Amino acid sequence: MSDIEIARKANKKPIQEIGAKLDIPNEHLLPFGHDKAKISEEFIKSLADKPNGKLILVTAINPTPAGEGKTTTTVGLGDGLNAIGKKAAICIREASLGPNFGMKGGAAGGGYAQVVPMEDMNLHFTGDFHAITSAHNLLAAMLDNHIYWGNELDIDIRRIAYRRVMDMNDRALRDNVHNLGGVANGFPRQGGFDITVASEVMAILCLATDLKDLEKRLGDIIVAYRRDRSPVYCRDIKADGAMAVLLQQAMQPNLVQTLENNPAFVHGGPFANIAHGCNSVVATTTALKLADYVVTEAGFGADLGAEKFFDIKCRKAGLKPDAVVLVATVRAMKMNGGVAKADLGTENPDAVKAGCDNLGRHIENLKKFGVPLVVGINHFVTDTDAEVAAIQDYCKERGVDAVLNKHWADGGAGIKGTAEKVVELCEGGTADFKPLYPDDMPLAEKIETIAKEIYRADSVVLDGKIRDQLKQWEDAGYGNLPVCMAKTQYSFTTDPNRRGAPTGFDLPVREVRLSAGAGFIVAICGEIMTMPGLPRVPSAENIRINDKGEIDGLF
Amino acid sequence: MSDIEIARKANKKPIQEIGAKLDIPNEHLLPFGHDKAKISEEFIKSLADKPNGKLILVTAINPTPAGEGKTTTTVGLGDGLNAIGKKAAICIREASLGPNFGMKGGAAGGGYAQVVPMEDMNLHFTGDFHAITSAHNLLAAMLDNHIYWGNELDIDIRRIAYRRVMDMNDRALRDNVHNLGGVANGFPRQGGFDITVASEVMAILCLATDLKDLEKRLGDIIVAYRRDRSPVYCRDIKADGAMAVLLQQAMQPNLVQTLENNPAFVHGGPFANIAHGCNSVVATTTALKLADYVVTEAGFGADLGAEKFFDIKCRKAGLKPDAVVLVATVRAMKMNGGVAKADLGTENPDAVKAGCDNLGRHIENLKKFGVPLVVGINHFVTDTDAEVAAIQDYCKERGVDAVLNKHWADGGAGIKGTAEKVVELCEGGTADFKPLYPDDMPLAEKIETIAKEIYRADSVVLDGKIRDQLKQWEDAGYGNLPVCMAKTQYSFTTDPNRRGAPTGFDLPVREVRLSAGAGFIVAICGEIMTMPGLPRVPSAENIRINDKGEIDGLF
Repeated sequence: MSDIEIARKANKKPIQEIGAKLDIPNEHLLPFGHDKAKISEEFIKSLADKPNGKLILVTAINPTPAGEGKTTTTVGLGDGLNAIGKKAAICIREASLGPNFGMKGGAAGGGYAQVVPMEDMNLHFTGDFHAITSAHNLLAAMLDNHIYWGNELDIDIRRIAYRRVMDMNDRALRDNVHNLGGVANGFPRQGGFDITVASEVMAILCLATDLKDLEKRLGDIIVAYRRDRSPVYCRDIKADGAMAVLLQQAMQPNLVQTLENNPAFVHGGPFANIAHGCNSVVATTTALKLADYVVTEAGFGADLGAEKFFDIKCRKAGLKPDAVVLVATVRAMKMNGGVAKADLGTENPDAVKAGCDNLGRHIENLKKFGVPLVVGINHFVTDTDAEVAAIQDYCKERGVDAVLNKHWADGGAGIKGTAEKVVELCEGGTADFKPLYPDDMPLAEKIETIAKEIYRADSVVLDGKIRDQLKQWEDAGYGNLPVCMAKTQYSFTTDPNRRGAPTGFDLPVREVRLSAGAGFIVAICGEIMTMPGLPRVPSAENIRINDKGEIDGLF
Repeated sequence: MSDIEIARKANKKPIQEIGAKLDIPNEHLLPFGHDKAKISEEFIKSLADKPNGKLILVTAINPTPAGEGKTTTTVGLGDGLNAIGKKAAICIREASLGPNFGMKGGAAGGGYAQVVPMEDMNLHFTGDFHAITSAHNLLAAMLDNHIYWGNELDIDIRRIAYRRVMDMNDRALRDNVHNLGGVANGFPRQGGFDITVASEVMAILCLATDLKDLEKRLGDIIVAYRRDRSPVYCRDIKADGAMAVLLQQAMQPNLVQTLENNPAFVHGGPFANIAHGCNSVVATTTALKLADYVVTEAGFGADLGAEKFFDIKCRKAGLKPDAVVLVATVRAMKMNGGVAKADLGTENPDAVKAGCDNLGRHIENLKKFGVPLVVGINHFVTDTDAEVAAIQDYCKERGVDAVLNKHWADGGAGIKGTAEKVVELCEGGTADFKPLYPDDMPLAEKIETIAKEIYRADSVVLDGKIRDQLKQWEDAGYGNLPVCMAKTQYSFTTDPNRRGAPTGFDLPVREVRLSAGAGFIVAICGEIMTMPGLPRVPSAENIRINDKGEIDGLF
């Protein structure tokens, strides 16, 4: 059966029953239909004094076209922990609407390790992203409106640093001239749209600890500069209060369920390149109060996703992760070992072994954060025992267990081994989380630390203009911010074709940006697309409601 | 107490209890929080064979700055009908989000005749308008994408007839050049954004009878023309199926409650100028299956709102209204009688009488549709008995009852008189609804009929180009469509300053547009703004969440 067929046959329970597993009273579950709910702000506040459960991060090797199954492992592990009698919940990101109309939509997990309702999660869900779009664009409208009515703040309209957003793959909106049509329509200027998940408002919602913090961070957004280069903030435009109102409901985490009726928090979805790529802090901290084990994931491979999870999300939210599951597959190891995609079906333990260098470097890297680790091998039907053993042997040599997981085919029952190992790591008391660099390290040095310690670059190429910019931000009081790296996810280098564990390369930084509200400096290494386009034949052409009332073509 | 204070003190019941009043089983109420729900498509289908209740339209004189209270009367009458023991529901429109950040938000009703939850209804509500924005803009993205990939349909990019939308007052987006930035971003062309309520998709959602009809109408939207002027449809772009998927949930009517815990359907909100300005057909037809009396309203005064309700909505949906309540106020009559706003507090029965000409013409007009009528005088505290009597005497001379309503101060108990009169009209069997003109009348003649019969213009000014355009549409098979007039709501003429019952004027038609999906021809008489701007000090500047967690500044 396909993922969608399995999802349609799901035996969903009313969301109140899922909430009850976490002792959430019905009045604090704000339902959206019968299978989705938001958790009330009031209830979340009431949890402040409860102890936290254990936090487990699921991350992965560098992605390959062979697929890794990070979300599937996250969902499976949540079910696996429940299957061995633990009170566990998972925390994952919400899907972006726009891309579903280009390529087929992303399910949340796969096989028998999925979160439902799948259709809703790939459509409007509980409206969070629409709220972010509205809040973001309200600030844009108020900014242009301020200029229209006299520009008291002396904004230099050539130096507007804030674009508009839409949750749509629409290349026509990347570069525009706005305010045309004469006096009544404002001052013509260049602008454009990003996709909603690339909005700083999205990153803010995902890092804010509560509504007050949200409003404060929104106020901190830099929207433009004056001729003298001094920044103009969202707060100066007086949009922060109304934006917080628009986001009040979106700040409440969403609760849904896995196919095995276990609780799943699905909340927030910032870009993993120009932002940090993790679900919301509020969802994670709430889940930690309600469950004994919380499994979450980070975007892309561990070089980007796990590093940002640790150095941005955990550092800023005061989270202390207890264990890491590093996902690898036989197929991906083969590709890293030089096998072409067409040949992945042929047994080749030597190629698996050769490809393990990529896995090995991630293992070394993750150890630097002080959190104990297990490798989860996501099983594919074509994998042979010898190939699996090749990964396990490689890991053993490095003092790490590698457990074979069959959650895709068997749900929670297929991943009990990893679940037990994770419990052992969490309860072993060996976790001693520390971020990679201290807050007070100079910004350029932070970039260099990540590049050298994690990517293993020989050096970082930062031209004088970029160094000056970083210095200016340090002088303006932003020096203590963490750095958010925007780099290809396919390689440790900036060249997506260099798989494995490359050495002998430099990391050129093309541009740096300040996300003052979200609270990080973005270092852009290579081309970053913040508004995707649609392909020649968009999947939307085949999406429709069929005669049974089901949605065809979305998956 | 202010409207918002009253609304905050509302003793809301769980939405399931409100649904139970209409015999809607819990499993067919899709909750959004505890006080809002959508009614399932499946349940609506199951009602097909049930008899319809009685349909009552609330309309008004031409609006004046003194205020009329059409929505307040609609809400009050629903409560009043329930108060006299009838099973009644109301049907009103959803509010547009964008304008709330310009001027203070619109409550749904006022005083003790309100619908709650007020905040949600003025913010994201159940996400319907966001879904319309997404569906609308998906088609725009697919249209530009089609051109980008080779333009097989031979679209003339100078003749694109489809803009983008956003639910925001943003004048910067009225006129843009899109697709700038080089080869990867498409072919530069002029475009722009309207506010979401002006989208043809909104009008379609409000006129579609079910999902199949919705998808068909979406396919019928004309998005562009070729060099030879032949139309390109949404169906040609293959966006109709995916748009219907995006709108599937939005097509389900929303149920909320009045302050007196009576059922209120709040669904759809098309512009009242370039569209027909009524709540959705699906909400009205569903309410008619579930309640014995359904009270609904139409936008603007009766010259625009009631005429479109009858000639577009009722004609197309096969609705047969049973009674009309025409709302008037002493203050508005005074303004029509020449009194300045500042002097409205002074007793002046003569001015009231002089101003009744406006009311009188609406009475004459409404009689042409064959539906019995009562005038509802919406009471203000400053009204004197002599002033109220002046209206009542005027109406009596014309064979129409005028009942004084105090629902603003007293809720349903204050409007029992009108409720009883409405029941008498509905049960009297005198209703014999007929639209103003037949389907097969030529388009130009339809415009003339409305202008002469309703507005009392001497003639319609249609230049040759417009006549040719109408002729072309007739040749293309659109001759049977009704006409949707876009004209100022403040006067029977196109001059907003001509109050009362003016004669001796012509109606110039500036432009005609074809809304092929919605199913009407728009005749534009005067300037129509489809993307509002924000004022110098937008209300958004004062909107925020206060220390009690309440939203300040929205009302």
